[in-house]
Amino acid sequence: MTRFHHKIHENKQGRDLLAEAVLEAASSVDNGFQLREADALYVGCFSSDVFEGQAHLGALMADYLGITPIPSYRVEAACASGGASINLGILAVSSGLFDVVLVGGVEKMRGLDTGKVTDTLAMAADVSYEAAAGFTFPGLYAAMTRAHFNKYGTNWRQLAAISLKNHENAKKNPKAQYQETILEIANKIGQRKGITFEDPYEFLESDFNPVIADPLRLFDCCPISDGAAAVILASEEKARQFTDTPVYVQSFGQASDTLALQDRADLTSIKASKLAAKQAYASAGLEPKDISFACVHDCFTIAEMIASEDLGFFSPGEGGKAAEQGRTGLQGDIPINPDGGLKAKGHPVGATGVAMVVEVFKQLRGECGERQVDDPVYGLAHNVGGTGATVTVQIFGR
Amino acid sequence: MTRFHHKIHENKQGRDLLAEAVLEAASSVDNGFQLREADALYVGCFSSDVFEGQAHLGALMADYLGITPIPSYRVEAACASGGASINLGILAVSSGLFDVVLVGGVEKMRGLDTGKVTDTLAMAADVSYEAAAGFTFPGLYAAMTRAHFNKYGTNWRQLAAISLKNHENAKKNPKAQYQETILEIANKIGQRKGITFEDPYEFLESDFNPVIADPLRLFDCCPISDGAAAVILASEEKARQFTDTPVYVQSFGQASDTLALQDRADLTSIKASKLAAKQAYASAGLEPKDISFACVHDCFTIAEMIASEDLGFFSPGEGGKAAEQGRTGLQGDIPINPDGGLKAKGHPVGATGVAMVVEVFKQLRGECGERQVDDPVYGLAHNVGGTGATVTVQIFGR
Repeated sequence: MTRFHHKIHENKQGRDLLAEAVLEAASSVDNGFQLREADALYVGCFSSDVFEGQAHLGALMADYLGITPIPSYRVEAACASGGASINLGILAVSSGLFDVVLVGGVEKMRGLDTGKVTDTLAMAADVSYEAAAGFTFPGLYAAMTRAHFNKYGTNWRQLAAISLKNHENAKKNPKAQYQETILEIANKIGQRKGITFEDPYEFLESDFNPVIADPLRLFDCCPISDGAAAVILASEEKARQFTDTPVYVQSFGQASDTLALQDRADLTSIKASKLAAKQAYASAGLEPKDISFACVHDCFTIAEMIASEDLGFFSPGEGGKAAEQGRTGLQGDIPINPDGGLKAKGHPVGATGVAMVVEVFKQLRGECGERQVDDPVYGLAHNVGGTGATVTVQIFGR
Repeated sequence: MTRFHHKIHENKQGRDLLAEAVLEAASSVDNGFQLREADALYVGCFSSDVFEGQAHLGALMADYLGITPIPSYRVEAACASGGASINLGILAVSSGLFDVVLVGGVEKMRGLDTGKVTDTLAMAADVSYEAAAGFTFPGLYAAMTRAHFNKYGTNWRQLAAISLKNHENAKKNPKAQYQETILEIANKIGQRKGITFEDPYEFLESDFNPVIADPLRLFDCCPISDGAAAVILASEEKARQFTDTPVYVQSFGQASDTLALQDRADLTSIKASKLAAKQAYASAGLEPKDISFACVHDCFTIAEMIASEDLGFFSPGEGGKAAEQGRTGLQGDIPINPDGGLKAKGHPVGATGVAMVVEVFKQLRGECGERQVDDPVYGLAHNVGGTGATVTVQIFGR
């Protein structure tokens, strides 16, 4: 994957970013890999149409990578475009039609100004019934937050614990957008006004961390990022030619739900996450306790809290407490987002679900250096589109 | 499928159009079909993002059709979005993962004015290298036309023959955008100025049919349309429950090529069409002569001429002559576009590849009334994205 970032890719297009990610994926294959060995290409992308004025990204990338005439597809499922592409790639290989499938995810978002990015992201919600009423994603997730607080007595400090943990992890990830702890960021910002912080909460509760959509503050929201990620999916036979230490797809799941939040029976949980996870666990013959670590979709801190419950790691209402107790940290019982998550690693929408699989792959191979989870057996990736109208889950193992 | 049209769907959104198509598909199943029997949903759509400001169409439609929580995907491959969705649907069923897959295609294009539609469609080309140089699709296909004329001595009257034939066919198709012959249209327009035409070429060569991109004139171009189409793909066992006369998927093919026309070795043929067709023929054990009729991608008349050669129905350079001789008419040796084609049936981009399959299905079941092809055995659908950077082909049989 490329580094996810808000500035350094300024002069690149999405095609450049994805090519960079694909070439890195190919060159990291232990026994060598030629792009021409791919039988098909799936590209997850939310809206190159609006962000870059360019569609037809499947063919564009097959062309740009020099791997025509293989069939190519662009898959869109909002912020789960990457996860949906992975699922279709797994299906294609497991069907036996293709031996090797290249799956890429990309989004070049910073070409537009922030307001327009927010409007563009709102296309992932129900534009006629949610965006038209003034809802953008921070507002939608704020509504879910408030419902969770009300039902379970969870609180904002627990959300902040998630943000703090994800920045800690991202500091150890050279591909992350932010590689500083929140305290480090706080003191960098504070310095300008002669302020020194010793407790990150002091900063997080101050006007330096403004309310975006009550109760969510700036550091509860993932940033806007440019970036790309790619993975190579192969049949077992092919994979064994490429490497002696392949990572296995144990299972995958996917579910849909109402596009608009207003149509959900419950705002404190994402039903499609539960269903997608249920499929994935059942198909792999595994339970939540068998999972060594997970990359979950923390577009907002509340999303990670809810995911940690929906995926069965904690009981409903217990996710916040667990985060505060450090149980989801690198040394915790279920490390969540060891790569820094969307919050601190960044969230180039279409790339996110693919980048999660990159992290799971590296963790399972023990290649994560300072952020390495201790001896993982199974890793889970969880990618959410919209407020949960699309959710994908994959489980991988060594 | 809905009727394809430029006016009547003015007050509908894409979601309304696709729901209409899906409900018609479901209600036309001989032994009854409940939408809940679908295991997955694939939606082909080029750019609801730009046309309607709405993305995440897979989940939106699963929601709108009341069939959550099934997995849903939006697939984009420019004007081949529909064909690519069909191919992924076929793959999903043939893999055994799903028994029944619903595939829809939709585009609501007329919300934007014509200039903006042309700009939006240009996103299917290479925006950085083609659109930036001033190319839009009529210009790109005009360049292909000129190359074909130069190499083979084909001429504009042969293109006009394709347009005339497709309007003749569309007159017999209640779902077509235009249901008049070109002579009827000519005299309707001429009447306003007191002119009567007896020969359609007299009209087609006049200023009433202005040059759009030399040598292509207005009636060489497909119109801008709103519309949707849907098909139900099922395992053989399931299909036999739904009907005693299913239509069989014999095979499917797909290929990619350079996105930009400038990078092609030859402009008189679409390489990806030849490759996709080759796959489909080989996999079905069939040859071009076995095909009873075909729905081909005639976004411009030249595209049908080239397709009739690339698909192997005529030798290179012979497609124009064959059209002029009526060999592709309803009574010809290989009827092409019995439904009126993109030219006269209309071309709501994402719906087109799916609508072709609807026509093939109906023809093979002998349900096409006045435009029915005589006792067809195999029907072929051919869908092109851009100037041929994506091509899909499917062959169906009784």
